[in-house]
Amino acid sequence: MNAALSEFDLIARYFKRAVPGGMVGGGDDCALFTVAPGMQVATSTDLLLEGRHFFSDVDPFTLGHKTLAVNLSDLAAMGATPVGCLLGLGLPTIDESWVARFAEGFYTQAEAFNCPLLGGDTTRSLHGITLSVTVFGTVNSSLTMRRNAAQAGDEIWVSGELGAADIACRMIAGQAPMDAALLKATRAALETPTPRIALGQALAAHAHAAIDISDGLLQDLSHVLHASGCGATLDEAAIPVHPALQPLLTAPGAQARLRQAILAGGDLYELCFTAPVTAHAAIRVLGAQLNIPVTPIGMVTQAPGLVVYDRSGHAIADLPAGFDHFRTK
Amino acid sequence: MNAALSEFDLIARYFKRAVPGGMVGGGDDCALFTVAPGMQVATSTDLLLEGRHFFSDVDPFTLGHKTLAVNLSDLAAMGATPVGCLLGLGLPTIDESWVARFAEGFYTQAEAFNCPLLGGDTTRSLHGITLSVTVFGTVNSSLTMRRNAAQAGDEIWVSGELGAADIACRMIAGQAPMDAALLKATRAALETPTPRIALGQALAAHAHAAIDISDGLLQDLSHVLHASGCGATLDEAAIPVHPALQPLLTAPGAQARLRQAILAGGDLYELCFTAPVTAHAAIRVLGAQLNIPVTPIGMVTQAPGLVVYDRSGHAIADLPAGFDHFRTK
Repeated sequence: MNAALSEFDLIARYFKRAVPGGMVGGGDDCALFTVAPGMQVATSTDLLLEGRHFFSDVDPFTLGHKTLAVNLSDLAAMGATPVGCLLGLGLPTIDESWVARFAEGFYTQAEAFNCPLLGGDTTRSLHGITLSVTVFGTVNSSLTMRRNAAQAGDEIWVSGELGAADIACRMIAGQAPMDAALLKATRAALETPTPRIALGQALAAHAHAAIDISDGLLQDLSHVLHASGCGATLDEAAIPVHPALQPLLTAPGAQARLRQAILAGGDLYELCFTAPVTAHAAIRVLGAQLNIPVTPIGMVTQAPGLVVYDRSGHAIADLPAGFDHFRTK
Repeated sequence: MNAALSEFDLIARYFKRAVPGGMVGGGDDCALFTVAPGMQVATSTDLLLEGRHFFSDVDPFTLGHKTLAVNLSDLAAMGATPVGCLLGLGLPTIDESWVARFAEGFYTQAEAFNCPLLGGDTTRSLHGITLSVTVFGTVNSSLTMRRNAAQAGDEIWVSGELGAADIACRMIAGQAPMDAALLKATRAALETPTPRIALGQALAAHAHAAIDISDGLLQDLSHVLHASGCGATLDEAAIPVHPALQPLLTAPGAQARLRQAILAGGDLYELCFTAPVTAHAAIRVLGAQLNIPVTPIGMVTQAPGLVVYDRSGHAIADLPAGFDHFRTK
């Protein structure tokens, strides 16, 4: 800790990597960037609070990684190409080694996805760490995947494999019995998620609607269905389960916990998207090309409502509740 | 308070006024907006924390107003035209009447400056209210006022009248003796500042450099001088003092407090800008047209350093320190 280090020193030391030509980064009242003709700007912001969205003792490198990754995930869900980002950082004290590690983690994502940090705001907080990230991307407006564009008859797909982040989070939070081997195998899903930028861009030519399922599969899919005026049926057995969770499929008493994680677990940065059945083969091909699992898990229906069929073919009566920051503890 | 009101209900009820055609507002993974050819996007973000940037008992209407106004001020300093904004809102509980008042105040600025709320993020906070605002505007890149563009020989100007916000803030915080009449006359400067959007746009054709002096005149001007490789001289007597503070000019023992407020007082959303002397008459005219005081207060010099001459023509030896979130209490 270095009490003499000022806000401006802090920014200059850790958050001033070069930005590409034609852009203006931190140090002016605003950052500036250019948008190619015919493209729209896509933008999203997230607020992340210590003790609520991340544990106080989280590794600052993984926190930096995740802080940007979860915002990039919103760009991915629109099929957008990242342009840059802004970071708001409220810190109770200046722990220089913490800030340095956080910046390293943040920049891994900024550099991996060509999303330079263009500016931001730092301030001293009274209680805990506050993070706010805003990302910008560009989209071809004719190809943007929108929540309200799902159509009856579309197949419903998810990327990746589900459940690991929720299982890890509950063990760390003491809401589920600790299993060190299981935590080790699931922790990366929670702490260093990979935004599906390339998949989102490729899907834009094929999919109707897309959303990232950061609030849980059922809740986020419900937003799409509601906005599109449709319903859906899902096949629980088709939903891809993270490999580390396979033992839970047959472990005594673990099914409810697994179902909760798969259907309602938040903090998951995969894409759920709907596409016409005529696009099925093309989507398979692009999943293979990108080496990202893409799995059809159900159908969009004209009838409203969301029905999930269990492994024996029965509609699940009590679906797990979704994730809501004002309802959950 | 309504514990049953969810995050989504809250957004739908108070933060869903219509956005202009061609834009996509809240409710998708990203907001979308269009940028005219030849224009660049200007963007800025601020993090505002309860107990640090605003008092816990502040009127939520004025807080909503100020939250957006301070961000619009950053657009003003670039000469940008507002396009839209995003709001991150962390609340410890849902006090519906508080949220309704906050939203009303926020929308007064959004509507006055054509800066629609396009999206955001709401979450439950553990400690106090957290606000994060990001604004977007567009600028003609050939007319953008940049911090590094001041030139030796430029006149230095400020808009408006200085000092009132700092005087009010210190009385409310108990750092200065309470004077109810003085607080009444200065409080609006602190709580409902007016971003100088129209002035910034008009100045872009005349001024070299501009900055908003939210961290205090000396500190923010120093950023311009440092970025431009110049120095400056200021004439304390020329700096326009808020009318409510005129009595302090002659009150016994009040001069140091007034000097602090004028030279270093933060939370002030006026513009400080530099322009060639050939633009002097044009700047006077546009100030008159917009009915905004604009006052020359000094000169940019080739020699580095910032010298302020007091009312008797002597260089002030001990300039008040600037505003730094990690240094001030």
